[in-house]
Amino acid sequence: MKIDGTSYRSIWAEDDGLTVGIIDQTRLPHAFVTRPLKTLDDAAVAISDMWVRGAPLIGATAAYGMAIALRKDASDAAMDEAYRILHATRPTAINLKWALDEVIRNIRPIDVGSRADAAWTLAAEICDSDVETNHSIGAHGLGLIKAIAARKPDGETINVLTHCNAGWLATVDWGTATSPIYQAHELGIPIHVWVDETRPRNQGASLTSWELGRHGVPHTLVVDNAGGHLMQHGKVDLCFVGSDRTTASGDVCNKIGTYLKALAARDNGVPFYVTLPSSTVDWTIHDGLKEIPIEERNGEEVSWIAGVDNEGKDTKVLICPKTTPVSNFAFDVTPSRLVTGLVTERGVCSASRAGLAKLFPEMANQPKQAV
Amino acid sequence: MKIDGTSYRSIWAEDDGLTVGIIDQTRLPHAFVTRPLKTLDDAAVAISDMWVRGAPLIGATAAYGMAIALRKDASDAAMDEAYRILHATRPTAINLKWALDEVIRNIRPIDVGSRADAAWTLAAEICDSDVETNHSIGAHGLGLIKAIAARKPDGETINVLTHCNAGWLATVDWGTATSPIYQAHELGIPIHVWVDETRPRNQGASLTSWELGRHGVPHTLVVDNAGGHLMQHGKVDLCFVGSDRTTASGDVCNKIGTYLKALAARDNGVPFYVTLPSSTVDWTIHDGLKEIPIEERNGEEVSWIAGVDNEGKDTKVLICPKTTPVSNFAFDVTPSRLVTGLVTERGVCSASRAGLAKLFPEMANQPKQAV
Repeated sequence: MKIDGTSYRSIWAEDDGLTVGIIDQTRLPHAFVTRPLKTLDDAAVAISDMWVRGAPLIGATAAYGMAIALRKDASDAAMDEAYRILHATRPTAINLKWALDEVIRNIRPIDVGSRADAAWTLAAEICDSDVETNHSIGAHGLGLIKAIAARKPDGETINVLTHCNAGWLATVDWGTATSPIYQAHELGIPIHVWVDETRPRNQGASLTSWELGRHGVPHTLVVDNAGGHLMQHGKVDLCFVGSDRTTASGDVCNKIGTYLKALAARDNGVPFYVTLPSSTVDWTIHDGLKEIPIEERNGEEVSWIAGVDNEGKDTKVLICPKTTPVSNFAFDVTPSRLVTGLVTERGVCSASRAGLAKLFPEMANQPKQAV
Repeated sequence: MKIDGTSYRSIWAEDDGLTVGIIDQTRLPHAFVTRPLKTLDDAAVAISDMWVRGAPLIGATAAYGMAIALRKDASDAAMDEAYRILHATRPTAINLKWALDEVIRNIRPIDVGSRADAAWTLAAEICDSDVETNHSIGAHGLGLIKAIAARKPDGETINVLTHCNAGWLATVDWGTATSPIYQAHELGIPIHVWVDETRPRNQGASLTSWELGRHGVPHTLVVDNAGGHLMQHGKVDLCFVGSDRTTASGDVCNKIGTYLKALAARDNGVPFYVTLPSSTVDWTIHDGLKEIPIEERNGEEVSWIAGVDNEGKDTKVLICPKTTPVSNFAFDVTPSRLVTGLVTERGVCSASRAGLAKLFPEMANQPKQAV
């Protein structure tokens, strides 16, 4: 999408065919810093230090990391070592492993002298494929926005609420929850986004606000507590959120607090849509509440809040007594019964086994053990 | 309640009969600072600069402010001037005006020479009456805790979730939502409190965590987003929250985000109780969503977060782009249908006109225009 009028992706190949550019997202929203990745180590640090984040972007960075490594040494041993180093940066990231496996599967059969170029091309294809997926999600979500616009007086603003950052910064481009929003905005449909700040890590405040603002999409930051009040007073027309993991039955595991917004949407008759690439569907699990373990993260993410002080200096502040015990659950599960629909790259379906099976029969109908 | 073993109220008269002590709550939780109020100006600043906060404590401080003023000059003119100055500190605080009116009504008929002593006594009575009210709320709430304890295996912890600070710091002592908790704790009932941090002003993180910790009540701080997840996983036995304003039909206006917790409680079969002195009931209004205007506060409360840096220095950090538009609704309304019961100084009743009328027939049955 655009940053002050200039088009960007969150990762790009430089013309030299040797360097990959990324945005250092740890510096957002207070500084816009791009970084060149020229070595395998650069790529590994970009992932481990979270200069890049979001499953699709991590996968794309890992693929380019392999390509960079193969430029230097394309032997089997070097390729395995690059895999090992990149996989270790975030060992639980499923999309990271998927991208690395793609590179191995496609590149190992090729002769050593051609591997680097082929890997470079493959990394670009992985990026383009993510962009295409997200664009499709957006096109299907756009239909939902248009349907609401059609029921409103001409020119009246459509208000969308979103949680966390399922934006272009988390993907290669378009984002998932933001993709229909950007597409509506580009068509001139008047759209406004309520941005949940998304405690404890404030990805809404720091990333979603930043990317919407730089692209020029009207938006307003609110605390996570506010969404219910906004819906009670007719200030939200629909919700778009992302998904970290979706069960085969349509339960959605997403950033902590998503469930509370789904409850408020249900209580107020506001449509609640989850936007997701089908790659987030785990076809082997069926009960999100029982089967998805919820990561508990360091309590300091809650008690110490990062930002810049009034001189612009990066600072953290403690908001509770030093000795206060803290729990920090990173995700929650929204049961499918609260989800109006799943917006995927193949269309919108009900949040149910039947809905998903209709769009993805080849996945849904696999025997369980074969998945 | 206690601070590290020593009993405190949030306001107290010193033995000299001239000075009133308070805790400077703007310094909590990072510093415990008490301040003497010796002049009318001291009392006015204590209220306007929010060294004291919470409706009952503001009222008590105003009453003592009048008494302090009358020590210096007990004439009608001086009394009216003190009223004017104190009322102007927070002109919309209903409890402040109530306390000032009480002083005028009781003291003006008395001869000038006796006024100061009488006002001093009256202020002490206003404090004692608040303590008694909150203790009664706690005793009734304690019954609810005991009933849950009776259904659990012996010795198993009762988990309570609370939002914001309806604690002893907001009242003269006991608090409202915390009163049953302190009473259960004193009886040796194993109790643990999930403390919502309560964005944007973080009163849960800074005040509720502090007071529970200093009194020795087990508790854990969580982000506001976490409560739904906790309830889905059986980690909450009941909720106690306060009320800023309650309609005659049992709708509850309280800190923003309360409604979301009530929805999660309903979805998971967790009892959701609102603790309140009957003085928060507005007998003239019946539909909280339609009739209670919600205060919008400065957006900087959302975008700039206050705390101490790692050297212990008071600091604020900006968490979003400087130019991001922000909305900051301070309260929301929880419809009575989501409230399991109202816990008042006269007992527990259903959140309904009939429930309130049974406990407070003299208020509920007044003709509307006479209220």
